[in-house]
Amino acid sequence: MDIKFTPVSSLGEFGLIDKFASLSARFSNPNILTSIGDDAAVLKTTAGNLSVITTDILVQNVHFDTSYTSMKHLGRKAAAVNLSDIAAMSAIPTAAFVSLGIHSNLSVEMVEEFYEALTGEFGRFGCAVAGGDTSASPIGFIASITVAGEVEPDRVPMRGGARAGDIVCVTGDLGRSHAGLKVLQREKSRYVEAGQPADFLANFEGYDSALQKHLIPEPQLKLSRDITDKIRVHSMIDVSDGLVSDMLHICRASRVSASLDEEFIPLDPITKRTAKEFNEDPLAYALYGGEDYELIFTIAESDYQKLYSLEGYIRPIGRITEGEPQVTIKRTNGSNETYTDFPSYQHFAKRNRI
Amino acid sequence: MDIKFTPVSSLGEFGLIDKFASLSARFSNPNILTSIGDDAAVLKTTAGNLSVITTDILVQNVHFDTSYTSMKHLGRKAAAVNLSDIAAMSAIPTAAFVSLGIHSNLSVEMVEEFYEALTGEFGRFGCAVAGGDTSASPIGFIASITVAGEVEPDRVPMRGGARAGDIVCVTGDLGRSHAGLKVLQREKSRYVEAGQPADFLANFEGYDSALQKHLIPEPQLKLSRDITDKIRVHSMIDVSDGLVSDMLHICRASRVSASLDEEFIPLDPITKRTAKEFNEDPLAYALYGGEDYELIFTIAESDYQKLYSLEGYIRPIGRITEGEPQVTIKRTNGSNETYTDFPSYQHFAKRNRI
Repeated sequence: MDIKFTPVSSLGEFGLIDKFASLSARFSNPNILTSIGDDAAVLKTTAGNLSVITTDILVQNVHFDTSYTSMKHLGRKAAAVNLSDIAAMSAIPTAAFVSLGIHSNLSVEMVEEFYEALTGEFGRFGCAVAGGDTSASPIGFIASITVAGEVEPDRVPMRGGARAGDIVCVTGDLGRSHAGLKVLQREKSRYVEAGQPADFLANFEGYDSALQKHLIPEPQLKLSRDITDKIRVHSMIDVSDGLVSDMLHICRASRVSASLDEEFIPLDPITKRTAKEFNEDPLAYALYGGEDYELIFTIAESDYQKLYSLEGYIRPIGRITEGEPQVTIKRTNGSNETYTDFPSYQHFAKRNRI
Repeated sequence: MDIKFTPVSSLGEFGLIDKFASLSARFSNPNILTSIGDDAAVLKTTAGNLSVITTDILVQNVHFDTSYTSMKHLGRKAAAVNLSDIAAMSAIPTAAFVSLGIHSNLSVEMVEEFYEALTGEFGRFGCAVAGGDTSASPIGFIASITVAGEVEPDRVPMRGGARAGDIVCVTGDLGRSHAGLKVLQREKSRYVEAGQPADFLANFEGYDSALQKHLIPEPQLKLSRDITDKIRVHSMIDVSDGLVSDMLHICRASRVSASLDEEFIPLDPITKRTAKEFNEDPLAYALYGGEDYELIFTIAESDYQKLYSLEGYIRPIGRITEGEPQVTIKRTNGSNETYTDFPSYQHFAKRNRI
């Protein structure tokens, strides 16, 4: 195998920027008038449209673990996570801005792999990199990403727009990303406990769809536009922290309650099987796992039938009601669980949050 | 003295975000429709205007040294540096996005001091914080900042617009920021060599204007708008890397040469005095020092007289000519220095660049 390790320092900042510029140039967007190579990017907006801007920072050993996330997966996921926020506003992405902090122990090949996957994922949705910044980092790898897009004012769904009587819908299935994470963490523990042997074989067989969901989530840009093409969506959010937290964000912003039925919350068979292996409740993966990057949205009951004409898996999971901001889960065993605050992230100790 | 040190961990991420939100709320911009508290910020653009977006990443011990930069100065400078890029496009800033990586050894008070100064500086120019992200950091402090603004299409000056015959102008004076940095570095060395005594007194007397220029540079937003109110500016850039590098950026983008006269390059008396103390050439501070955040711009000769009606210190320093992209400095001793490539950053070993 021909694996190269070129130290970043041997290329220098301008050499690295040249590589980034040529990888970025594989994709373009007609609304980007100037991009890399000026003080700022200049973007054209369709008259009357609104600009939508989102930003995320990823820090090594906080948001990702390079022992089971390749730079390629990381690059793609970094783009996808931001595009998912754009999808939650039913907007169309235009331009991305990518700032990197790079420690000198990283190779040019690693950074290039990240950047190629990142620009490729943006490019797949018509979004081009229009700017950024590059810096040394005293430790590890830092990626700070900003994405700009645009949306028509009459269709942007806000978090604060949910109304009593709305039906709560969700795209895809929930908890599968967390199932993938559990498997990755288990195999990492096995590897560490075995003394990190060079010939270690991780046991990933049969978990493909869970691993894929965790490592390379799909932003629901097209489905979001398809939905708002047909329906005036009252509120929408993407599932990054888990169903309870993200639903509670809508409830707080809209000053309403949500009542969700366990029996309607979509769980994939692989999520159920994985949770069973770990002796855990698969519903907990959906409620608190997060990182599914599906969409939760609320619509008027009278619009519900319009969803049938859409391609894509969309399910109703409950109702918006009047009342204090809270989320109630009606369990199939007849009990109710009510959340007035965000469930602790320590549930899964998944993220090394502040 | 009542100095508090509240660990960031005691407040938690949401507590910190609440503090940020209340500091941000001191300022608003009518074009920000939704900001902190949704998946993305939604901005309104005046019909026909262009969006301008710039981004910068600041990493502790790479871009700043907390031994002589307070969190307050750092916050203000982080905002100013991005606003300077907006000024170089003659745009009006609207919204800022602030992502922070925070190590657990930082106090809430330090982070708050940074954030208050940052939002205050943005607010001074009508720009409000509309989003961001907060993360733990395994080491030090990281700030990634993005600023969006807007500009009329017929007045945005691009780097690639310089034409042979143009007059090259510069606002303010150059090299003073580097003079300030030299003094800060000298006093830090004295402090370290003295064994870091608690009663150490840095000798900053008489250097105020140089220290201020380095620690809290002023973005030339108003002057930039005033200039493009009167004149169709062909090209513009802000001085972040030094006159030679930044002029060369214009030459490369415009495919022209620039010929600048040493005698016209504006140097402040404090810059000359400081360079003399260090036995260095004050012109070198202007040519390679950087971080002055003044504006270099080129205009048609026929427009030159219009500058007289402006308030603000603006000086012609040379000409754009036909030819390969290069910058020539005509020294007062009759010699010429020509740069076809960026002078090495090692000139001053100022930045720990990649």
